[in-house]
Amino acid sequence: MKTSAARSSVPVALADVQVTGGFWAPRVRQIAELVIPHQWDVLNDRIPGAEKSHAVENFRIASGQSHGTFHGMRFQDSDVAKWIEAASYSLHAVRRAETQRAIEEAVDLIAAAQRPDGYVNTFFTIAEPGKRWTDFSHGHELYCAGHLAEAAVAYLEATGSRTLLTVTEKYLAHIESVIGPGEGQVRAYSGHPEIEIALARVYRLTGEEKHLRFLRYLIEERGSQPSFLRKEPTFGYVFKDKWFDLSYHQAQAPIRQQHSAEGHAVRAMYLFASVADLVIETGDQALQRAMDDLWKSVTTARMYVTGGVGSHAHGERLSVDFDLPNHRAYSESCASIGLIFWAHRLLQITPRGSVGDVLERALYNCVLAGISLSGTEYFYSNPLAVAPSEARSREDLKHVATQRQRWFGTACCPTNIARLLASLGSYVYSTNADCAFVHLFVESDAVLRLGDRHVSIRQRTGYPWAESVHLDVNPDRPSDFTLAVRIPTWCYSPTAAVNRTPFRDLRPFVRDGYLFIRRRWTGGETLDIGFSLRAERIAADPRVRADRGRIALQRGPVVYCLEEVDNGENLEDIVLPREAPLQSDHRQDLLGGVVTISGEARRGGSRPANGGLYGPAVASISRTSFTAVPYFAWCNRVPGEMTVWVRES
Amino acid sequence: MKTSAARSSVPVALADVQVTGGFWAPRVRQIAELVIPHQWDVLNDRIPGAEKSHAVENFRIASGQSHGTFHGMRFQDSDVAKWIEAASYSLHAVRRAETQRAIEEAVDLIAAAQRPDGYVNTFFTIAEPGKRWTDFSHGHELYCAGHLAEAAVAYLEATGSRTLLTVTEKYLAHIESVIGPGEGQVRAYSGHPEIEIALARVYRLTGEEKHLRFLRYLIEERGSQPSFLRKEPTFGYVFKDKWFDLSYHQAQAPIRQQHSAEGHAVRAMYLFASVADLVIETGDQALQRAMDDLWKSVTTARMYVTGGVGSHAHGERLSVDFDLPNHRAYSESCASIGLIFWAHRLLQITPRGSVGDVLERALYNCVLAGISLSGTEYFYSNPLAVAPSEARSREDLKHVATQRQRWFGTACCPTNIARLLASLGSYVYSTNADCAFVHLFVESDAVLRLGDRHVSIRQRTGYPWAESVHLDVNPDRPSDFTLAVRIPTWCYSPTAAVNRTPFRDLRPFVRDGYLFIRRRWTGGETLDIGFSLRAERIAADPRVRADRGRIALQRGPVVYCLEEVDNGENLEDIVLPREAPLQSDHRQDLLGGVVTISGEARRGGSRPANGGLYGPAVASISRTSFTAVPYFAWCNRVPGEMTVWVRES
Repeated sequence: MKTSAARSSVPVALADVQVTGGFWAPRVRQIAELVIPHQWDVLNDRIPGAEKSHAVENFRIASGQSHGTFHGMRFQDSDVAKWIEAASYSLHAVRRAETQRAIEEAVDLIAAAQRPDGYVNTFFTIAEPGKRWTDFSHGHELYCAGHLAEAAVAYLEATGSRTLLTVTEKYLAHIESVIGPGEGQVRAYSGHPEIEIALARVYRLTGEEKHLRFLRYLIEERGSQPSFLRKEPTFGYVFKDKWFDLSYHQAQAPIRQQHSAEGHAVRAMYLFASVADLVIETGDQALQRAMDDLWKSVTTARMYVTGGVGSHAHGERLSVDFDLPNHRAYSESCASIGLIFWAHRLLQITPRGSVGDVLERALYNCVLAGISLSGTEYFYSNPLAVAPSEARSREDLKHVATQRQRWFGTACCPTNIARLLASLGSYVYSTNADCAFVHLFVESDAVLRLGDRHVSIRQRTGYPWAESVHLDVNPDRPSDFTLAVRIPTWCYSPTAAVNRTPFRDLRPFVRDGYLFIRRRWTGGETLDIGFSLRAERIAADPRVRADRGRIALQRGPVVYCLEEVDNGENLEDIVLPREAPLQSDHRQDLLGGVVTISGEARRGGSRPANGGLYGPAVASISRTSFTAVPYFAWCNRVPGEMTVWVRES
Repeated sequence: MKTSAARSSVPVALADVQVTGGFWAPRVRQIAELVIPHQWDVLNDRIPGAEKSHAVENFRIASGQSHGTFHGMRFQDSDVAKWIEAASYSLHAVRRAETQRAIEEAVDLIAAAQRPDGYVNTFFTIAEPGKRWTDFSHGHELYCAGHLAEAAVAYLEATGSRTLLTVTEKYLAHIESVIGPGEGQVRAYSGHPEIEIALARVYRLTGEEKHLRFLRYLIEERGSQPSFLRKEPTFGYVFKDKWFDLSYHQAQAPIRQQHSAEGHAVRAMYLFASVADLVIETGDQALQRAMDDLWKSVTTARMYVTGGVGSHAHGERLSVDFDLPNHRAYSESCASIGLIFWAHRLLQITPRGSVGDVLERALYNCVLAGISLSGTEYFYSNPLAVAPSEARSREDLKHVATQRQRWFGTACCPTNIARLLASLGSYVYSTNADCAFVHLFVESDAVLRLGDRHVSIRQRTGYPWAESVHLDVNPDRPSDFTLAVRIPTWCYSPTAAVNRTPFRDLRPFVRDGYLFIRRRWTGGETLDIGFSLRAERIAADPRVRADRGRIALQRGPVVYCLEEVDNGENLEDIVLPREAPLQSDHRQDLLGGVVTISGEARRGGSRPANGGLYGPAVASISRTSFTAVPYFAWCNRVPGEMTVWVRES
């Protein structure tokens, strides 16, 4: 692997981190044993009641193995690619023969669908053969190519097979010959970023500089004016309105001149993640400063408390600062996944606890909410409040599902969630020659490389429910290095002990949210971290109109919500008194085992004295109690009202 | 005028009520002297910066006096008709020669544009000559015909001229021959009700039973299944989505089977007003019961505190019960005007104070907010909260104007407001042979007919700012009759005195919200009514999610709002303590003279301890004061934030 100026550490590969227990192992296993086979069945249209996919059949048709017409979105191919990527990751956890065979079948189909010039895209092969590279706004050709390339890298890393990488390299060679700034080339870039992320991965795997050059071209060309996008038939989308302008594509200005995160949220997150890749590979400090502005824009003014991104359903867009409506939130699962990609890369540039906090916020809340506990149903959009009767009757809420769905016409989220969770192990650690960073608390066995040393780390933790993390550290030989453990911001009084000897005062050792422990590790050392986990009231910046007068409940990284099934109807009627104690309970019987938060509450407020629709206000307040469950677990019992932000008094 | 079974009183005609002073006279004069001439200029495209109208020019083209193509909406003709109607009313207040000449010009143009068969519609004459009577969903032919007929009645009543009535009668004869249940007729009804209201007026004026028959046909035919509307090209509108279904046109079921108010708010209000007309004329009790359900549906679950109707911009629709969002409110000025039309008719069937309350609520708040104090700028939509930065950046708020507009592409509201306010005098009183009802408190001189008696009533009042109403009652001869004065619901301890002798206890004399005073009136009597006007906190039904934890301020019929110009930015940060006193101040210097409400408030609530976007909640509350101004006067200084519903603690 190539190292670079701006990278302070490199993630520990998925192959080297086995998730073994705790909160995550059942989920990772569920992905491998249930979700991946189930999604393969959906992609092959074998699940009754699920929305038609046709994604595999499109490849069969494109490769001449079947007859018929293309069905689905222009980016239907990416569902297959993301599934291959997710399935490949899942092999690291469970080497399931059926999964391996299914991946091979998919890979062979893709290879067979590749045109002689390297081109791979079933929509433009079957449905619009004459229109290649004419619709960057919404055609998603580069997007699909990117997912194909990511799948190829994941497949090779999981199985050693180069089949899909060979297809990818041939396709990338074609793409890089067709698109670019040179004479006779199409001077364009992706409407929906994704290939940029893939190019960095292929570059890192192969060391081929041309992919880094093409990545740099795509990022630097973006936003040049006048924009080629304006001349495209689908620019402005079907409604041709201002919400599908250049900023929708993050093309309103060159990336170095963008200081606020704009436009389609998934596009934005993917782009910014790939800008981080370019910073990693080039050490470009000016680009890093622009990216830091964008990070600040998202995480200090345009992100939900769940780590959701994207306030608007129309255009699936980010909004202006502090416009974070709860019922209307789009908050697509994929956007939070993109935010995690971006955070993951930022942590490789400079480990900062606040970045890890955002990563965890998105992971434990928005992303995990996107998949049912059963593993077979999904949310595409993740609003922070749902009132089913209004959701069904309001056009501005037509994107809101009041119960989980088996599949979607645009099915980007299910496979995206699968690939993220299946690869969770690769988010836990990163290393450089002298230091091992612990970013996430995941029960796991890992082997880390620090320069030429190998260090085994066994992590044992009931996190996020329990507040202790135990690490067994075993280097392959006694040596000096640093172990840097992220201390989440929500933890006020962390404790740490090496070989059961507690630190008297941690503060001198904590920098930028990481606890740095430098010592000679001889083998057999233990490190015990203690977090002071407690249920807390969380407030939003007062400029967030939608959350004013409200609090959210959080315990560790987990954000909570009230559901109708626990609290009765009309959740807006519930008020949490500012001083009432909050109680946490471990409930093994509930929602697969969660910690609930409960306490005293009030129901009511002013109501019309005369009982009509409006009337002189009289206070009408009764005592009640409330029970909150983790947001990620909502809507796994009966559908009903839900709210994250609760009125406070 | 024809009397009928279901009508307990008949409104006193505009010609018989001169608005002489107080709150309303300057407004009625402004309509006559400024608004009417200004709107005529707009309709003739003589106002720079106003949206192009072309409405008069369309008639010039259709009548062969000019050349060119049709411009505007399919209902552009109705702007001219509504202007004629408004201008005619205004002549009762100010007999302005220029206005009279302009009306004559408009009337002559319309007469000249009438086709030999009686048909009058410039769109279908100029732009789509072959498509008459093929698009009832959105073609608005019957709607425009209705406005033409209303104009004809108003013009005749103001001037004695039958010119436009002759045009109308010829057109109605054509319509009634083409449309109906008979063989060879088009079995259809209006997509947008309005002709129904007009038919009742023409019937009352002319006594021609055929118009009542046609009105009955239109109302009874509506909602019969299978619906002819489904086969129309524009049914489902351009988006062909569920928000433009049969209920959009109130055609989901026969009116007798409709129990909740659905669909396009203006269509609904106009239809229900005309159902009241049919009840008035027929005494049909089953129909009245259906209509009462609809009234209850609107006024107890689907109406804003401002008397606004229509929660959704998309489809300009009513929503489900209690779904009354404030920022997103559509609350079209025209819908509130329609609600007033309906209430006005209901009061003729059975005087009920609660109906008069709704009428006043809509009049003093939503409708009056729709026109600037200057008389030249308008709101089409009347949200109950505006945050300009969000309104500009959210697609679901694209209907929200953050400042008043000079005119609109769809310009239904300006002339509608003008015709309502210019005819205000006709809403004040109604009579039967034995009783005079005082519905509104408007400084005015009126002559009422009770059977064969004439009774002069001079009303003197500073209402809605002042709490006393003084009436001088002078019958043309001493006689026994009842004076019934509406006592608004918000008034807890009304007082009354005849010839300065106070009633010791009013309660025995108050029934259904009216104070009934029966006596022998000999002439020279005075009646003094005292309302206990005070600033009050108003609460909404707890099921109104958007208003939970909030109160509105009201004083008499006037609903208040907070504006940024008085209270600083971020109005969501302001909290009104439940017990803090409210102070009312008469401010002659402000907004043309208003009463303000002010008092102590708090700013703040919980905020993140660490100052970030989200963090542990710490209380951060400071003392401040607030000033509220009447909602109708908002956005007459500098644009900015506004809110009606304020957080309460």
